[in-house]
Amino acid sequence: MAHQSVARVMFHLVLVECPLELVPEPIRNHPAVTASSKRGGMGAAQTILDGTYHHAAMTPLPDKERRGRPDIVHISLLVAMGSILNKEGHLRLYVHTLNNELIEIAPETRLPRNLERFKGIISQLLVQGSQGKEASFLKLTKGMDIKKVLEMIRPEKVYILEDGKELSSISKAMKEDGIEPGPDGKVPEVAIIVGGFPHGQYRTDLNGFKARAFSIYKEPLETWTVVAGVIGNIEGAMGLPSGARRGTP
Amino acid sequence: MAHQSVARVMFHLVLVECPLELVPEPIRNHPAVTASSKRGGMGAAQTILDGTYHHAAMTPLPDKERRGRPDIVHISLLVAMGSILNKEGHLRLYVHTLNNELIEIAPETRLPRNLERFKGIISQLLVQGSQGKEASFLKLTKGMDIKKVLEMIRPEKVYILEDGKELSSISKAMKEDGIEPGPDGKVPEVAIIVGGFPHGQYRTDLNGFKARAFSIYKEPLETWTVVAGVIGNIEGAMGLPSGARRGTP
Repeated sequence: MAHQSVARVMFHLVLVECPLELVPEPIRNHPAVTASSKRGGMGAAQTILDGTYHHAAMTPLPDKERRGRPDIVHISLLVAMGSILNKEGHLRLYVHTLNNELIEIAPETRLPRNLERFKGIISQLLVQGSQGKEASFLKLTKGMDIKKVLEMIRPEKVYILEDGKELSSISKAMKEDGIEPGPDGKVPEVAIIVGGFPHGQYRTDLNGFKARAFSIYKEPLETWTVVAGVIGNIEGAMGLPSGARRGTP
Repeated sequence: MAHQSVARVMFHLVLVECPLELVPEPIRNHPAVTASSKRGGMGAAQTILDGTYHHAAMTPLPDKERRGRPDIVHISLLVAMGSILNKEGHLRLYVHTLNNELIEIAPETRLPRNLERFKGIISQLLVQGSQGKEASFLKLTKGMDIKKVLEMIRPEKVYILEDGKELSSISKAMKEDGIEPGPDGKVPEVAIIVGGFPHGQYRTDLNGFKARAFSIYKEPLETWTVVAGVIGNIEGAMGLPSGARRGTP
């Protein structure tokens, strides 16, 4: 039943165009921002934009309905990092932001379970860059559009989860595309792109990536639902969770 | 490939012994509590216990390492409610707390994505009970231990997700147990119990429930990972996500 070859694939999950950024300069003096920065004990320039607290301040921002949702990134990462797929060493995680910053998260990283603490860590990373012992867990690279991220990962195949495309699943698409470990045991690298924005379509033109786009449901889903669904589908194809005891019948 | 009969089962997912409660009386005057209540604009008696803010105050509390983790409930609920299984109408959700309070959440409820707002709603519910239009979404019943919850649901079968038990999966266990829709088309009701506590074992003796306990992984997992894993396994057995277009090949 298990699609065994899937068990020897490395999956690179890239959350793209994520609404994760520091409060932008033009609205740093807005009362809603200064009040929340004060509560957080940090300056506005070190505060993560969060629509929950900064809604009133965000009015003049372009694309404001796509910004200020650190909760989407936080929950999606907790779901992905807690997964059996990650614990079994088959997952690599990346957060690409609307400002083309890329954060690579080491598989063994213990992220804060609390959103405010998560925002604190991301703020520090965006302000100071990767530093000290944190740098081995969270690596920040600026100036990375999605194309550059994929050039860095160099996957054999790119799958894009996109609303309104044909209904399919990762395991089905991989089977159809003949993604298999090489005869020399070479592990195929597969990139999976999931939008980190709250709604709407990708802003980046993804047509040039020779990628395959599909949808896992007839309606839009939350980012973390797509993440859980994709990971669950891969785990199922791998025979996980019951296949977690590899080598036993 | 799809285990079609699973598509006609109603799954009752019960998060039990959840660390969700108001700040208990003995520590309401602790500075850590009064400071956080002031920030939240509510009295200590209306504040949800949260280890992130109340850690220092929680020292004298019995079982303190199992308490004050509203984030576990929040993330697990977001994962469950966002799932395709829920959107397709096959899931019922319950939160049972360490204080034997039961919260039933209607499938179409839109929970706040922000933890602080979620805590606000739960606080209101615990203080005032189910009231007004909220009552159709969140229903609170006090004095409900797990036994009473199961007596209310009256499931045909109870599955308990428990660390250290035999490795299996819901779909495998259901197949082995012959859980099928009745010849009259009667939909079987299945209860799934998942611990909402951060670590350790169930405090309730679950042996009397004629339930089947199993584990989905060789190591302890986060509650939301178990929720995502169980739901993903059911979706896989149902042929979801690709089976979401029911009636098409």
